[in-house]
Amino acid sequence: MTKIGVVLSGCGVFDGSEIHEAVAVLLALSRAGVQYRCLAPDMQQMHVVNHFTGEVSSAESRNVLHESARIARGDVVSLGNVTATDFDGYVFPGGFGAAKNLSNFAVAGGNCEVNEQVSRLVRDAHSRKIPMAFLCISPVIAGRLLAGNGVQVTIGDDDEAMAAFDVMGATHVICQACEMVRDEDNLVISSPAYMKADNIAEVFDDITQSVNALLEMVSQRQSVASDG
Amino acid sequence: MTKIGVVLSGCGVFDGSEIHEAVAVLLALSRAGVQYRCLAPDMQQMHVVNHFTGEVSSAESRNVLHESARIARGDVVSLGNVTATDFDGYVFPGGFGAAKNLSNFAVAGGNCEVNEQVSRLVRDAHSRKIPMAFLCISPVIAGRLLAGNGVQVTIGDDDEAMAAFDVMGATHVICQACEMVRDEDNLVISSPAYMKADNIAEVFDDITQSVNALLEMVSQRQSVASDG
Repeated sequence: MTKIGVVLSGCGVFDGSEIHEAVAVLLALSRAGVQYRCLAPDMQQMHVVNHFTGEVSSAESRNVLHESARIARGDVVSLGNVTATDFDGYVFPGGFGAAKNLSNFAVAGGNCEVNEQVSRLVRDAHSRKIPMAFLCISPVIAGRLLAGNGVQVTIGDDDEAMAAFDVMGATHVICQACEMVRDEDNLVISSPAYMKADNIAEVFDDITQSVNALLEMVSQRQSVASDG
Repeated sequence: MTKIGVVLSGCGVFDGSEIHEAVAVLLALSRAGVQYRCLAPDMQQMHVVNHFTGEVSSAESRNVLHESARIARGDVVSLGNVTATDFDGYVFPGGFGAAKNLSNFAVAGGNCEVNEQVSRLVRDAHSRKIPMAFLCISPVIAGRLLAGNGVQVTIGDDDEAMAAFDVMGATHVICQACEMVRDEDNLVISSPAYMKADNIAEVFDDITQSVNALLEMVSQRQSVASDG
């Protein structure tokens, strides 16, 4: 049975995974009848943002794995215990956690560094032709790690973020909500989700479409493998 | 335009709102084309549970309103600023927050007390015939407050929880996942959601159905009001 890993970065749009996006991914996977596990790095968040005031709570610290477990109802695996071949495909929901915890894109832009466990997973999955989907702001991770492979991704049409892709040397394709980029050479799907969507219904439509496109890539790869 | 209030109790199944359920409510409301706002009491949570280990983090404290803002992407209103007639209907998602923060059902069972702001809102909405939907474990709030009005609700078929409804003097109806109880006299909908559902897809089906039933009640009430 197909197994998909969902890489979370905390719990909440301003310092972790965007909750609606992460839940949309899980729902699409459940509706498609595939197995999934949530995964997250066991590390402290860059910071904690009070989502009511929008301000940083400087006295607080939270752990990415522990907070991600809120979205996963407790069932989350530390990325340190994951090998790329454990899953048939991976999905990276958005939220600032992708740009603050999984990478430091929020502060370093196109010159960002990606968390070492995330970097290893993405590079290993790519080299073994395991498909991946990057949603919302998380395509910056694919751009940073796979620019040398000619990866094509979208984060919508945000000028500042698009300029960062130039710095990385990655190709950015402008998309509107519910559009996606399928990079068939690199087996990478991306779509803008809340970078462009006006409401939660659009986010679910956008992400369901991207998850289904990922599952198509996975199943094509599985049939090639069984033919071989 | 119809406006629905969604009463949250934090962010995470073990100490707040069940995230999948809360998001399912928002999605169903968005798909139905109605306006919604998230609401939550401005109070400290009963406690913080580390969702990875399942243990209470006794050194931590978190605020229900601030944590609910994670699900609401910042757009949440303090219950203290809400009057029952501000909305045409209300939805209470589940999660232990309904039984630990909005009430103390988790420790007191059938003799529980309900948070004063929640109690006022539910009693006022009921007396003004504003429909309400209670999901998962949150029907204990309706049972406790509206037992004297002969309210009928479901939390699925959990023996211990059902026994608590006897203590309250409220009528509990056994339901399976994706079934619901429509109490037309009290304008109260309830369904078991994660009390019975086996997966996130079932939760979304269960809740979409309940939200749509609530919106039917709201629209019937609106047409009666405009006829009058």
